Amino acid sequence: MPAADAVVIGVDYGTLSGRALVVRVSDGAELGSAVHPYSHAVMDDRLTAHRGEALPPEWALQVPSDYVDVLKNAVPEALREAGVNPGDVIGIATDFTACTMVPTTTDGTPLSELPEYADRPHAYVKLWKHHAAQAQADRINELAHSRNEPWIGRYGGFISSEWEFAKGLQILEEDPEIYAAMDHWVEAADWIVWQLTGEYLRNACTAGYKGIYQDGSYPDADFLRALNPEFSGFVAEKLDHEIGQLGARAGGLSAEAAGWTGLPEGIAVAVGNVDAHVTAPAADAVAPGQMVAIMGTSTCHVMNGERLAEVPGMCGAVQGGITEGLWGYEAGQSGVGDIFAWYVENQVPGSYSAEAESRGMSIHELLTEKSATQDVGAHGLIALDWHSGNRSVLVDHELSGLMLGATLATKPEDGYRALLEATAFGTRTIIEAFNASGVPVTELVVAGGLLKNSFLMQTYADITGLPISTITSTQGPALGSAIHAAVAAGAHPDVPTAGSLMGGRRKNAYTPQPEAEAAYDELFAEYRALHDYFGRGTNDVMRRLKAIRRNAHNNRGTHDKAVAA
Amino acid sequence: MPAADAVVIGVDYGTLSGRALVVRVSDGAELGSAVHPYSHAVMDDRLTAHRGEALPPEWALQVPSDYVDVLKNAVPEALREAGVNPGDVIGIATDFTACTMVPTTTDGTPLSELPEYADRPHAYVKLWKHHAAQAQADRINELAHSRNEPWIGRYGGFISSEWEFAKGLQILEEDPEIYAAMDHWVEAADWIVWQLTGEYLRNACTAGYKGIYQDGSYPDADFLRALNPEFSGFVAEKLDHEIGQLGARAGGLSAEAAGWTGLPEGIAVAVGNVDAHVTAPAADAVAPGQMVAIMGTSTCHVMNGERLAEVPGMCGAVQGGITEGLWGYEAGQSGVGDIFAWYVENQVPGSYSAEAESRGMSIHELLTEKSATQDVGAHGLIALDWHSGNRSVLVDHELSGLMLGATLATKPEDGYRALLEATAFGTRTIIEAFNASGVPVTELVVAGGLLKNSFLMQTYADITGLPISTITSTQGPALGSAIHAAVAAGAHPDVPTAGSLMGGRRKNAYTPQPEAEAAYDELFAEYRALHDYFGRGTNDVMRRLKAIRRNAHNNRGTHDKAVAA
Repeated sequence: MPAADAVVIGVDYGTLSGRALVVRVSDGAELGSAVHPYSHAVMDDRLTAHRGEALPPEWALQVPSDYVDVLKNAVPEALREAGVNPGDVIGIATDFTACTMVPTTTDGTPLSELPEYADRPHAYVKLWKHHAAQAQADRINELAHSRNEPWIGRYGGFISSEWEFAKGLQILEEDPEIYAAMDHWVEAADWIVWQLTGEYLRNACTAGYKGIYQDGSYPDADFLRALNPEFSGFVAEKLDHEIGQLGARAGGLSAEAAGWTGLPEGIAVAVGNVDAHVTAPAADAVAPGQMVAIMGTSTCHVMNGERLAEVPGMCGAVQGGITEGLWGYEAGQSGVGDIFAWYVENQVPGSYSAEAESRGMSIHELLTEKSATQDVGAHGLIALDWHSGNRSVLVDHELSGLMLGATLATKPEDGYRALLEATAFGTRTIIEAFNASGVPVTELVVAGGLLKNSFLMQTYADITGLPISTITSTQGPALGSAIHAAVAAGAHPDVPTAGSLMGGRRKNAYTPQPEAEAAYDELFAEYRALHDYFGRGTNDVMRRLKAIRRNAHNNRGTHDKAVAA
Repeated sequence: MPAADAVVIGVDYGTLSGRALVVRVSDGAELGSAVHPYSHAVMDDRLTAHRGEALPPEWALQVPSDYVDVLKNAVPEALREAGVNPGDVIGIATDFTACTMVPTTTDGTPLSELPEYADRPHAYVKLWKHHAAQAQADRINELAHSRNEPWIGRYGGFISSEWEFAKGLQILEEDPEIYAAMDHWVEAADWIVWQLTGEYLRNACTAGYKGIYQDGSYPDADFLRALNPEFSGFVAEKLDHEIGQLGARAGGLSAEAAGWTGLPEGIAVAVGNVDAHVTAPAADAVAPGQMVAIMGTSTCHVMNGERLAEVPGMCGAVQGGITEGLWGYEAGQSGVGDIFAWYVENQVPGSYSAEAESRGMSIHELLTEKSATQDVGAHGLIALDWHSGNRSVLVDHELSGLMLGATLATKPEDGYRALLEATAFGTRTIIEAFNASGVPVTELVVAGGLLKNSFLMQTYADITGLPISTITSTQGPALGSAIHAAVAAGAHPDVPTAGSLMGGRRKNAYTPQPEAEAAYDELFAEYRALHDYFGRGTNDVMRRLKAIRRNAHNNRGTHDKAVAA
């Protein structure tokens, strides 16, 4: 039993900054927090960490020392803000974006920190949104399907270009010298723990979801050799390493890290983790059936199940991927908040912007207000929410958006509401896939920025027919990490228990309204028919239009070059 | 042979005003013009001609004396502007909106001018866009199909609520006293000629297109009786009358009308006509195969054919409906310019409005400029142009708009261009229906406000694969009327000859670009597949959404009333 005033630190590593949160172990009270931005942010245009060399399209790199700077700055600042004695801190845990990868030497030194490689883009961290390994991912998927690899079904039939194998293969094929120099290909989630403890340990979450680690093994050497003969040793030489379970103690805080943070040497450091997955216990929602939707620019759904089932279109199903001892399912909607933002930026007239400004509200709030009073179906529209493709359940990034039903009487708020509803229909489609696969969803728990739109939340309740709970904390991931820190420190016996004490949600904050629910059932049938018609191959017009579009842009590129030459 | 300085007057009666144009008979030179607005404009909300009584939804009335005021004001003013001696005027002709209907006594006095009926809405002119007779139109169509009436196929299977029978039946059923008092149910196109000559003569164009006059007869008394026993005498008692051919002399200018206009008594007055149809000779485009598209808020297509064929989805096929001796085909696209206007008003952000304003251009011009440089298919979108329903070839006003292919990279100009293209695909669909029915289209001749958008014109050429000619005159309908006046006066032997001398077009102003044409063929195949899927009953989602929308609005109405009560 820890002292009553024992605290832990959760550090949430986002895309542009890291946040440290000081949390009381006994009840999850959030005592102080601080944010530290990465000084190199995202290098997606030029290698600003060196001499600003231009980067090719779709690249996204980061600098590992920026992560350490968060420990050096945000942690002490959060402690000061909390007014907490560092001696009361009993543990620290981190969560990270994923799949974000660091190529290192045997001792964990990032290759980018070696002077001889500082000018080599492949020596840097490949951020999750580095999308330049698509060609490699395509080959991985094609080969996996042609060989009927047993693991491909666990990922909805689709290994992403963002993940460990595609990014690793890209290095081999584009900069073999860096590939040869790389002793470990490390998840940033684990690299930061390595910095804290001085020891390398992989975490079960990213090993499973991003590293194709299933049933105790990775894709075999035959498979790797078929991709590229030089790649056959990738797992054995670069990837394979001891795996720690989520919430376990990875080690004690090293003297060096104690110096950076001002925390006591030797306190517990938890096994690495991922921002989405760590949010589930922060919402006290890790029981089977509790689907946690982290709703922001996109939505990530995480849910535990008691058994392994083949749920179509998963991002992944991983043993212990969310909490130890259960099957963690992850699904996703590729576009949600970013679709609403696109609409506001591109499809809403100036008169609306002016009204929103004069009334001191956002355009999102104005459009929500104007459309919220409509009866279900009054706008006459149905949209498909595929502006960023479809992850679950179709796993097809060649799909695109659709808006059907516009008349000359259609107003800007009508289209906005139709898009809100479309994302809810998308969520319902995922939930129905779970239900149909024997992994029933009984509660939808929402975290993320979009939960502040209460009309959106009510719409999700009405469309899914499920009670909606909302996470209490505004710092879900950092609180989730703190919960893992408390468990790693032995303050609570396991993550579910710690989540119930330290995390929380407003239970049934929104419940379905029977009349709206029935009205939406009719519209969902229309959504589903369009979903299947355009998404399951009856009419592949979206794929063809994307191909035509690419050709048009490529021809234009060729033409422009010819004119310039 | 008329004197070298002989002139004629064409008067074009639009929805809100009438325009008089003074034209030289020998070469069509436009010497002067004047516009006179209707002082009562359109009464669609209140009966402003009486005491402002409220009108029901969908009504649209006018006041006949407003039409006479155009003769009294615009004609003399145009003559003055032209600097023409009224004695040189040898004829006058008119064209009108249609189907616009005047209920009159035996001598042509509008019932609304009788004091006892001045407070009765049904005594007034029912403007073309009076849409309150939909229930009657629905019954007419249902009955016609159930009885396999031979004439229904000539109208694409669909008699409009705008036309003579539906509007007439509405009077009978809503105000039988007015119906009983009505001796003639007169097209405004003919009523104005009656005012000019003192004699009533129906014109072949509206009798055919709006009055269901086919092969020498109207729908028979049995049919009328089945609609409503009191309606059985409608044709015999109210409608049937001598019919004059287009371009024929209806009579001589009466002394009274000479007094109004300042024109010589006795000069030729031509048989009445319709704005769209009269435009064909103004463009010198009345030969079979020359399709004239009058492109404005909507598009009306008129074309002569040598024989009668069943072309799907026609608004009508009428013997002598455009020029005497040929079959006149009329087709239509219910929404064109109004779809572009809707998009600009509702789906274009303030930054674009600001840029357009600062550069002194319209938003339409800005969006055109921004999208015109794209290669075909580069925006990745396909739209269906059904925001106002589909007239030809589907004849379904329950259809609605569709935009497919949007991504987070889609810009406002992309959607705009996709809508421009969609209307061109709609035109191509109509042209292909003509071609497939043995009425080949060889040239597309554009009149109307949209011809000023040269990118739009080039797009129509590229998509239809036809050379596009554009009418020379900016006053197509008034010039077309003047051409009919010249023929009625005997200055030219027939309308085609007069059109070739007085009308004109820029021949092949736009020709298809082979590369773009081929690229558009691919996109048209996608349009066509969606057109058939949503338009021909495979997926009736648009109809269902409109029904849901109506129910939602009706429930809301009921609800609001309940709350108010």
